Amino acid sequence: MKKKFNLAIIGLGQIGGYLYNELRLKKKEIEKKTGKKIEIVAISAKNKNKKRKFKINNKIFYSNPLKIFKEKKIDILFESIGLSDGMSKKIVELALKKKISVITPNKALIAKHGDKLSELAEKNKVNLEFEASVAGGIPILRTIKEGLATNKINKIYGILNGTTNYILSEMENTNETFDKVLKKAQRLGYAEPGNPKLDLNGFDAFAKIKILSALAFNTKISKSKCLMEGIENIQLEDIRIASQLGLRVKLLGISEIIKGHLFETVHPCLVGKNTYIGNVNGVMNAVITEGKPVGESILQGEGAGPGPTSSSLLSDLLSILRGNTKYPFGISSTKRKNIKSFNNNNYTNSLYLRFVVKDKQGVLSLITNRLSKYKISVKRIIQTPDKKNKKATIVIITHKTSEINARNCLSLFSKNKDIFKFPTLIRLYN
Amino acid sequence: MKKKFNLAIIGLGQIGGYLYNELRLKKKEIEKKTGKKIEIVAISAKNKNKKRKFKINNKIFYSNPLKIFKEKKIDILFESIGLSDGMSKKIVELALKKKISVITPNKALIAKHGDKLSELAEKNKVNLEFEASVAGGIPILRTIKEGLATNKINKIYGILNGTTNYILSEMENTNETFDKVLKKAQRLGYAEPGNPKLDLNGFDAFAKIKILSALAFNTKISKSKCLMEGIENIQLEDIRIASQLGLRVKLLGISEIIKGHLFETVHPCLVGKNTYIGNVNGVMNAVITEGKPVGESILQGEGAGPGPTSSSLLSDLLSILRGNTKYPFGISSTKRKNIKSFNNNNYTNSLYLRFVVKDKQGVLSLITNRLSKYKISVKRIIQTPDKKNKKATIVIITHKTSEINARNCLSLFSKNKDIFKFPTLIRLYN
Repeated sequence: MKKKFNLAIIGLGQIGGYLYNELRLKKKEIEKKTGKKIEIVAISAKNKNKKRKFKINNKIFYSNPLKIFKEKKIDILFESIGLSDGMSKKIVELALKKKISVITPNKALIAKHGDKLSELAEKNKVNLEFEASVAGGIPILRTIKEGLATNKINKIYGILNGTTNYILSEMENTNETFDKVLKKAQRLGYAEPGNPKLDLNGFDAFAKIKILSALAFNTKISKSKCLMEGIENIQLEDIRIASQLGLRVKLLGISEIIKGHLFETVHPCLVGKNTYIGNVNGVMNAVITEGKPVGESILQGEGAGPGPTSSSLLSDLLSILRGNTKYPFGISSTKRKNIKSFNNNNYTNSLYLRFVVKDKQGVLSLITNRLSKYKISVKRIIQTPDKKNKKATIVIITHKTSEINARNCLSLFSKNKDIFKFPTLIRLYN
Repeated sequence: MKKKFNLAIIGLGQIGGYLYNELRLKKKEIEKKTGKKIEIVAISAKNKNKKRKFKINNKIFYSNPLKIFKEKKIDILFESIGLSDGMSKKIVELALKKKISVITPNKALIAKHGDKLSELAEKNKVNLEFEASVAGGIPILRTIKEGLATNKINKIYGILNGTTNYILSEMENTNETFDKVLKKAQRLGYAEPGNPKLDLNGFDAFAKIKILSALAFNTKISKSKCLMEGIENIQLEDIRIASQLGLRVKLLGISEIIKGHLFETVHPCLVGKNTYIGNVNGVMNAVITEGKPVGESILQGEGAGPGPTSSSLLSDLLSILRGNTKYPFGISSTKRKNIKSFNNNNYTNSLYLRFVVKDKQGVLSLITNRLSKYKISVKRIIQTPDKKNKKATIVIITHKTSEINARNCLSLFSKNKDIFKFPTLIRLYN
């Protein structure tokens, strides 16, 4: 096996830049651990003159990353541009076709094109590694592919987005509104300064769930439309009321095999304050797998930021340097099966519903009548009047009901002049 | 690379027997995941006629495991006898010399002879894998060797023994004495029916800490005498008092680099009820690593029993079948360094001290005077009289003090007729 590996890094943003530094600092250590020498022979970024913490070596810089293949012999390419398509897809495809191993933290790319890229890597007998795409520094993909390799996993879930978890924790701790806390998160670098939408609306966590499902259940990445909700509608008041009820709001990603069908979802959940998952706070991520014979396994760690991400990118690099050629999804693409999706309408949960209504007689019974019409039975009602504004808040915790019933029932409340806002719905976990 | 691998299992107790079944059940799945066929061509046990859940195939059974090498071609050998020396050591050495890869859950063997066995494996270019030796189903060794490979770890600690954690949790939950709960643990198969001593006195957790240190810090296994205490002296009363103080007793294993020296210990600790580690209960294990750049990582899972152990043994098998030859301790033995040990005398903690004394004037001041003589300052005192028996319980929480001061000071109390028992000492974590 060869002794020296040429590396290229495409994209020098927060992640790519940090990685570039780490690779230079840890060159010796990597040689000690693997017996292989590495050299960064090419780097590329869209904007060469952007302010960075390090100097760009002009001799190895390329404005057009596609040029690299013509001028340099590359063994391993890091893609850290971060698009689901465009140049990210182009460069990864091209590299794999040229028998260059690829390492990427790009969850959007893998969740969308992982199946095809994986086939391409297998065909060309090179590695496609994406440990950093899910849960930052937590080596969850490696754990599923290797550590838990012969277990039968039936469920995998957890807190997969550090930004939203930080926002929810901080709202509870400081009593500050969503908007204020979001701005703080942006200042601290936890949320994208420009467009944090993909974190907040659940898309980021969803891409991770798709990757986790494919690995845990040995299936192709599911294309079906799933239940995805973000935290944009969670208000401080919901967090306060939840807290009084001994609950806490968490954005959970859940993937589960239900009666042979795949069910994937991302949505806010109310979890007990005394539960394990209820105590994973701040930017922490946690992934819980339920498998046989191993039982329940929990992995927790920092889920965001260049440090943890870089830790995972380097673990992928070491794996390649040690000569471990592996199927990107643990087993050969030809053996990964398509799986039918579970019908979201049949997903059942207890619900937390918060209504803001006109403080007058008859409104509560209007609500309960409509709930009962859809066979949604009530477990608990808390009505808090706001005399000054002639309003009242009604919080209802229901027994388990299906998505379809809940949706149909709630839609009835959209046009009533006594009900001031469309009811807030948060599902209870378990 | 070859397509078919011959396996031998030496030792058919709880672990070996379960493994034997799993391998037969998962043969097809293993072939699917690795492209390699496996066949169990030899098994061996001390007592052939012991009652087992499966029938022994006489054609592959050997009373004397050493005979196997003469009659069969073995590629991978599972050692599940469990001794630190004797036949365990003999058979593993012999196998490695014959270029047979070895997989073992035997922590006593690895903690004692791991350095030499690892050199032997490297010399003969075969694998020596022992994922199952630490924390059952939690793939912690693989995570350190691969997932966190380029991190600088400075501390690794956790709950490493499921038996003692079950006993402590159960005592708190049921208010039953140590002896009663131990018997229950034995009935449930969590504690050895014959001799549970190695779990209870901390030895089992200690062997695991030694293995973790060597992996986390890239050092040789330390031979120095360490601070090891078990849970035999923890009484129901301590658990009750701790609970009133918002604390919980846990047996922690801790390995840390302090000023360039290695500090390893296993002892009961008082941890906050609201902390993460304070909520790892029952037979669960948890391992926490602190590293850079990854930050804090937590792995939690079932730490005992044949299911989780077998999950780890099979992950080792898959790793070998996939052709991943690796240094047993992550890096070459020639590069693992010896490290000096931290002087235990300088280990400092806040202490919980429980005295049972004669209920008469002057005893409390006698105790506090002696503490002050050794510069142990008191944070909190709780005195509870037991008028009927003319006794009193005095619980003292101290500020931080060194081991040497605590030991010297407490020794003064051994010969006083007003102090009914040698004071119970439990260290507070952090």
